[in-house]
Amino acid sequence: MEGVAAIDGLRLWLGVAGTVAFAVTAVIAVAPRGVDLFGVVVLGVITAVGGGTLRDLIIGAPVFWTVDQTLVWVAIGASLLAFAAQPLFQRRSLFLALLYLDGLGAAVFGIQAVTKVWALDIGRPLAPIVLGVVTAVGGGILRDMLAGRPSLLMTRELYAVPVLTGCTLYVAALSLWPAHGTEAAVFAACLIFAIRAAAIRWKLVMPRILVTRTHPDA
Amino acid sequence: MEGVAAIDGLRLWLGVAGTVAFAVTAVIAVAPRGVDLFGVVVLGVITAVGGGTLRDLIIGAPVFWTVDQTLVWVAIGASLLAFAAQPLFQRRSLFLALLYLDGLGAAVFGIQAVTKVWALDIGRPLAPIVLGVVTAVGGGILRDMLAGRPSLLMTRELYAVPVLTGCTLYVAALSLWPAHGTEAAVFAACLIFAIRAAAIRWKLVMPRILVTRTHPDA
Amino acid sequence: MEGVAAIDGLRLWLGVAGTVAFAVTAVIAVAPRGVDLFGVVVLGVITAVGGGTLRDLIIGAPVFWTVDQTLVWVAIGASLLAFAAQPLFQRRSLFLALLYLDGLGAAVFGIQAVTKVWALDIGRPLAPIVLGVVTAVGGGILRDMLAGRPSLLMTRELYAVPVLTGCTLYVAALSLWPAHGTEAAVFAACLIFAIRAAAIRWKLVMPRILVTRTHPDA
Repeated sequence: MEGVAAIDGLRLWLGVAGTVAFAVTAVIAVAPRGVDLFGVVVLGVITAVGGGTLRDLIIGAPVFWTVDQTLVWVAIGASLLAFAAQPLFQRRSLFLALLYLDGLGAAVFGIQAVTKVWALDIGRPLAPIVLGVVTAVGGGILRDMLAGRPSLLMTRELYAVPVLTGCTLYVAALSLWPAHGTEAAVFAACLIFAIRAAAIRWKLVMPRILVTRTHPDA
Repeated sequence: MEGVAAIDGLRLWLGVAGTVAFAVTAVIAVAPRGVDLFGVVVLGVITAVGGGTLRDLIIGAPVFWTVDQTLVWVAIGASLLAFAAQPLFQRRSLFLALLYLDGLGAAVFGIQAVTKVWALDIGRPLAPIVLGVVTAVGGGILRDMLAGRPSLLMTRELYAVPVLTGCTLYVAALSLWPAHGTEAAVFAACLIFAIRAAAIRWKLVMPRILVTRTHPDA
Repeated sequence: MEGVAAIDGLRLWLGVAGTVAFAVTAVIAVAPRGVDLFGVVVLGVITAVGGGTLRDLIIGAPVFWTVDQTLVWVAIGASLLAFAAQPLFQRRSLFLALLYLDGLGAAVFGIQAVTKVWALDIGRPLAPIVLGVVTAVGGGILRDMLAGRPSLLMTRELYAVPVLTGCTLYVAALSLWPAHGTEAAVFAACLIFAIRAAAIRWKLVMPRILVTRTHPDA
């Protein structure tokens, strides 16, 4: 760690990388249903900025992309590119790289959201955690609702749980050691990414004991 | 009626009871689809606080759970409990008791929302009624959209109509006899609960004459 | 064109006509699924005012129907009427007339939204375009999500693309010739309607080259 400045510079590039990953994975996710270019861009952009939009609406802040439109442009560009380069993503290695990048995006967006909500002193300690998770996974859930796909809430995928774990630990650290917020943020984001990467690498899912059982009469 | 103070004390407990009922019925509703613990808690919380969140966003008030997180904690706890106690709800009597409690929750949340929007003098007389219904049924509709289940809008269930009836009469009473708001609120909430309870007890649904007919060429 | 005053007078009637068209087409769209009168009115109203509600939430403006409830009353009335007059819409000619009116509504609501967001100087140039499209098509997409129908994002229908085209040209004109906003608005709305009408008349859809291809391994 070389201090706050380096982190700040890094943050923009992480935001861009996460936005690209969210938009491109969205296009890949909906492509099999035969979506036209307009739908592709809309779903890519919603996946990339939807979570942050929900966060800003709930905390009553100006929606971030009405202030600075960089990430919307990035999402539009990435969606168009993904549409043009569809055959490329049939290559397993590239698709896997994207999955990891998508996990990095979820880590960065979740932790950034906790930082924002914590700094505004809104609903500590629960609201920063809730809104960290909403920011990280909200866009993907909106995309799945719009595309008629089962959302990650209905699967055993380990996607939101790493984010929840990291955001909770980050909020605990902000409470206990307020002077070391930056270090805690970096650690929590790395932790989220590490768990998510492990889940991708070893195909980890929620253990069956933590899944509801089907009732015949329900 | 012993006055406003008793009602105020009662209100907190009714809110807690309604929140528990909303969260637990949500878990029971989605359990047959095999949802993991994270999904269970998210869907339970969204069902419990989603309607009030939509209301606050639309009237531009701070979202209630960013100010006071009691009901989110209650919803999390109730969802966890419902997950742990799944086999219990296979008992018909307990499930029925929950259905009635859920109806009580809808009555309380609907009428509380009308009171809040009316007091802020927003969009009388239509907005208080609309937002009363949104608050009472919005969380359940969000849950069904997230879980890929047909929402109550697509069924003939008598759930939203009692709420609409009670909220409309309550708004009429607030216009005609502004000094007797508390009595009107209690009466309207009881009326909503009574109609809903009758619908549960005697399996009442919307009469077929009030349902659209299928067109072969539509 | 006789000036701003005539346009202003016209705007109210266009808003009413668009609202009626949105509500009635919503009822026709969901009727085959057997929806009760309550669901019909809710889905009609959401289709008519949902897009504008999303716009106002995102720009942080008071939601329009909490200020002036005219269009909600119009949407309720139109939905009830459409329910009562269901057999009428089996007549091909009346249904077609409604489709054109619906296209007019999309044109008017989209351009009005661009005007509103542009005047507030929010997120130029991207946000006015995005919110123009959201206002025009958001209500219909919400309706389809609530009704469990595939939304227009998942079809090749030429509905949102004309709106996007018109809103983009309108924003370009507002940037280049700020003194001629009214003329540009009228031209853009006419253009949207013309493309949409052509799409209805000649059953135009997005060319297959602009639709994603199904991957066997996706």
